[in-house]
Amino acid sequence: MTLPTDPTATLLVSCRDRTGLVAALSQFVFANGGNIIDLDQHAEHESGLFFMRLQWSLARFGLDRAGIAAVLGAMAAELGLSWSITWSDERTRVAVFASKTPHCLYDLLLAQQLGELGGDIALVVSNHATLAPVAAHFDIPFVHLPVGEDKAAAEREQERLLAEHGIGLAVLARYMQILSPDFVAHWQGRVINIHHSFLPAFVGAKPYHQAKERGVKLIGATAHYVTCELDQGPIIEQDVARVSHRDDVEELVRKGRDLERRTLTRAVRLHLERRVLISGNRTIVFG
Amino acid sequence: MTLPTDPTATLLVSCRDRTGLVAALSQFVFANGGNIIDLDQHAEHESGLFFMRLQWSLARFGLDRAGIAAVLGAMAAELGLSWSITWSDERTRVAVFASKTPHCLYDLLLAQQLGELGGDIALVVSNHATLAPVAAHFDIPFVHLPVGEDKAAAEREQERLLAEHGIGLAVLARYMQILSPDFVAHWQGRVINIHHSFLPAFVGAKPYHQAKERGVKLIGATAHYVTCELDQGPIIEQDVARVSHRDDVEELVRKGRDLERRTLTRAVRLHLERRVLISGNRTIVFG
Amino acid sequence: MTLPTDPTATLLVSCRDRTGLVAALSQFVFANGGNIIDLDQHAEHESGLFFMRLQWSLARFGLDRAGIAAVLGAMAAELGLSWSITWSDERTRVAVFASKTPHCLYDLLLAQQLGELGGDIALVVSNHATLAPVAAHFDIPFVHLPVGEDKAAAEREQERLLAEHGIGLAVLARYMQILSPDFVAHWQGRVINIHHSFLPAFVGAKPYHQAKERGVKLIGATAHYVTCELDQGPIIEQDVARVSHRDDVEELVRKGRDLERRTLTRAVRLHLERRVLISGNRTIVFG
Amino acid sequence: MTLPTDPTATLLVSCRDRTGLVAALSQFVFANGGNIIDLDQHAEHESGLFFMRLQWSLARFGLDRAGIAAVLGAMAAELGLSWSITWSDERTRVAVFASKTPHCLYDLLLAQQLGELGGDIALVVSNHATLAPVAAHFDIPFVHLPVGEDKAAAEREQERLLAEHGIGLAVLARYMQILSPDFVAHWQGRVINIHHSFLPAFVGAKPYHQAKERGVKLIGATAHYVTCELDQGPIIEQDVARVSHRDDVEELVRKGRDLERRTLTRAVRLHLERRVLISGNRTIVFG
Repeated sequence: MTLPTDPTATLLVSCRDRTGLVAALSQFVFANGGNIIDLDQHAEHESGLFFMRLQWSLARFGLDRAGIAAVLGAMAAELGLSWSITWSDERTRVAVFASKTPHCLYDLLLAQQLGELGGDIALVVSNHATLAPVAAHFDIPFVHLPVGEDKAAAEREQERLLAEHGIGLAVLARYMQILSPDFVAHWQGRVINIHHSFLPAFVGAKPYHQAKERGVKLIGATAHYVTCELDQGPIIEQDVARVSHRDDVEELVRKGRDLERRTLTRAVRLHLERRVLISGNRTIVFG
Repeated sequence: MTLPTDPTATLLVSCRDRTGLVAALSQFVFANGGNIIDLDQHAEHESGLFFMRLQWSLARFGLDRAGIAAVLGAMAAELGLSWSITWSDERTRVAVFASKTPHCLYDLLLAQQLGELGGDIALVVSNHATLAPVAAHFDIPFVHLPVGEDKAAAEREQERLLAEHGIGLAVLARYMQILSPDFVAHWQGRVINIHHSFLPAFVGAKPYHQAKERGVKLIGATAHYVTCELDQGPIIEQDVARVSHRDDVEELVRKGRDLERRTLTRAVRLHLERRVLISGNRTIVFG
Repeated sequence: MTLPTDPTATLLVSCRDRTGLVAALSQFVFANGGNIIDLDQHAEHESGLFFMRLQWSLARFGLDRAGIAAVLGAMAAELGLSWSITWSDERTRVAVFASKTPHCLYDLLLAQQLGELGGDIALVVSNHATLAPVAAHFDIPFVHLPVGEDKAAAEREQERLLAEHGIGLAVLARYMQILSPDFVAHWQGRVINIHHSFLPAFVGAKPYHQAKERGVKLIGATAHYVTCELDQGPIIEQDVARVSHRDDVEELVRKGRDLERRTLTRAVRLHLERRVLISGNRTIVFG
Repeated sequence: MTLPTDPTATLLVSCRDRTGLVAALSQFVFANGGNIIDLDQHAEHESGLFFMRLQWSLARFGLDRAGIAAVLGAMAAELGLSWSITWSDERTRVAVFASKTPHCLYDLLLAQQLGELGGDIALVVSNHATLAPVAAHFDIPFVHLPVGEDKAAAEREQERLLAEHGIGLAVLARYMQILSPDFVAHWQGRVINIHHSFLPAFVGAKPYHQAKERGVKLIGATAHYVTCELDQGPIIEQDVARVSHRDDVEELVRKGRDLERRTLTRAVRLHLERRVLISGNRTIVFG
């Protein structure tokens, strides 16, 4: 991760397990002069599935990117692989959706400024104008896009903005609007949300009030991909914090803010570093 | 907690908040020559409730225990207090209910042997004979009490055993039987169970399978008082552990065992050290 | 902690333990019409010391603040108390000292903006101009005060600034200058620093490099009061994060930044909420 | 890890990084009909070292174990690999060394009984007779071997016992004797100790007293391989627990016991599952 490194390729693969998969893929890298930097593979005996993340250096690699894709496409067809490949120097452009609460937005923008994020926040979209100065401070374009009666029109405009800015990932940073099934379907696996509870506990509204009432001893936050079912998408990252009877709901909210921003930023980084593979309704996270 | 200490009294109080409560109770201790060792009080603005734990040394105290109880009873009537008092040298006798899995039972018995528990395990009751050697190893009476068709008869026998051994707390250490509403009502606030999930997530059966399927990134355990509603009683203690896709269900079970025993033993110790106050369906835990 | 609450007084007391201390102080509050909101007291048997934090509502209190201080002063003289009292509506003014790294500064300023801090950041002082825009974004005065050859002159100017702005707490937010013994002595118990290791492990420079070389499995951060001995002052708060061989030093630095800012902000909040009592070279933190 | 699985081979490799290492080793497995279950590889850019753990199923593998070793030996010579291979059905036999405190011993024996350990405890050795009943309860041979004036004689007897029982790993479960440099040299990388602090903080004696005095907010435990320098060997696993001023030294010891046993048992399991590779004075732990 230090500065003037050569570009790398990161390949994510899932499929039915069979012999020879690692050999075939690592041989492909070696045969073209690549050096594997990190390989993390696991065959899950319960499901019979094979999961792999393979990262190699592209310095002196014998094939260009189109060539790599072509070979992998052929191998995938033959071996029945689900796969995706990304290049470290083609960074994903990210849009952050926010409403009025700033803590998650600040955390993401600061992570980007510090060079920690592994992608580029290119746009902040909000249904309120409140956070415009935050985006301005970090020199990121801000679009105030109120969501009124005509939600479909607002979403068409969102889609247009995402296309215009070449966005590859949308992050809902405490964005207080529910996306339509069409939008979600179109952006499947590319919208990350933060829920302010330790899912599946306390789905729905006011989780901190629910937590206080239930008397739990830990509160949590969950970052997950958005699907059509509310709070049910594949979980990327979770964290918890200890609470006591001295913590009123307001203090739970405060502790929760800290959890939310950390958990969301971590999940976004994991996604942008290509460490997250979606398999059915869960994720494989390569640590 | 060091060895030849004088006995102490521990008073737990909850009531509607009003001025003068701490002054009245601390003045009572002082006026009779007691020294307060630990006082932990909080007035909850949301509920308007007052919670307090007050522990003082009985060395050279001017009133005997009956006298203390009488004075406190009078104050409670006047001030509207819910209260309980216990004496450090009158240790609670504990019955552990177990089935076949030994990890929670070992943990409790070892804690007792090391002098960590703050009470005395006097009896192990089981619907199987499997764990008899464990109880024998720690020199604790073991009663094999199969629960067959006539559950009511088994519970009558359990009640008889608990009475005979002067039991003040029953601990369900992965005990695979559901207690009847009558039993639960009679033992309200005196039966602690360990549930192998982070409640309220994954109530009911096979929580580790549920966790694997949902793809959570942390698993948990919850120790709670038993009430008539399954898995719904006041929570005493919870803990979590991080898991990954490399953990199959069997490994979740193993990590879970470690959580379960720690969480249960901690909850039992908190109860026996009189650090737990039940208020409605939640607990106040004085740390 | 919710908004339009009445002002409260918070009293911190330490002394040799003796009977009657809680009764005397709580009686004083009651006799003047105050209501205790939170009381946390402990007598430490090993040291024979008494520690207490007592917070009460000043609504309808029968004495003004000068009167309270006079009575407490008299009681303290009689009973041998070390004490301090603060008022929730007389918020401490805080100066943050920073150099070039922004993460701790952002965290403190955002906490203040969200109303979480319990004090008011009134000034940012830096030996570099780098972070001026951050202070400006949050509307906090920024003073660029280079520290050159004449360190004594720079410190005189710092002292003048702190006095001019009525500062009660200085926070070193990764400030890369060592304060003189005179400055430290003058500001004893009022300067909080963040050290980027789990003290007392890895004192001194480059703790993340030390951690990588030693192969520890957790890295940490420690917030402490500054004393004349480097990295030796009373510890207020610590936290850790798990690391693996996949984390190079740069990644340790990144994980460490997250620890540092959380730990420092928590420590500052604990101080500003009057939850920290210094006793010799350690702190009592009332949770 | 479920019940009647086929045996697996686990290969640990470290060397100077170069291209083709993964390809060569995975091709070897595939060419002989093996299926890779888990592969975890990382090239460390700071050191230029290559680390890998490779586990494959031996069902229908075309080479016997001697054949595998021969091929790997030849590859290692050619490629400059440090390597070790183990077979899941050739379980390591473990000797636990203990003195008088039982908590770590119980934890290891219970883990074995529950089938969690990945090896077989074959022997308990102690310089006291105290824990003989614990070993007996778990049906493990116990040898009382007092260490008197002639420490060399005692160590010769220990060596003889370890040889006689075919021991491959010695675990010091709060064993209160220092091993001689000769013994340590002979058993390099095969003796695991638990230190009751978060190393490198509080090396040496009475770490809980040191922790209390220093006022740390977390205490820790560290499992490490024993080397000739006390408390300086490669760290395998560490964990911490939060403490407060309410915890006297005795309570720190109790919280510490819980940390020690968990951390030690985890480290032993990691070693026995061949997840630990020693590289210089640190370990690579494949999670």
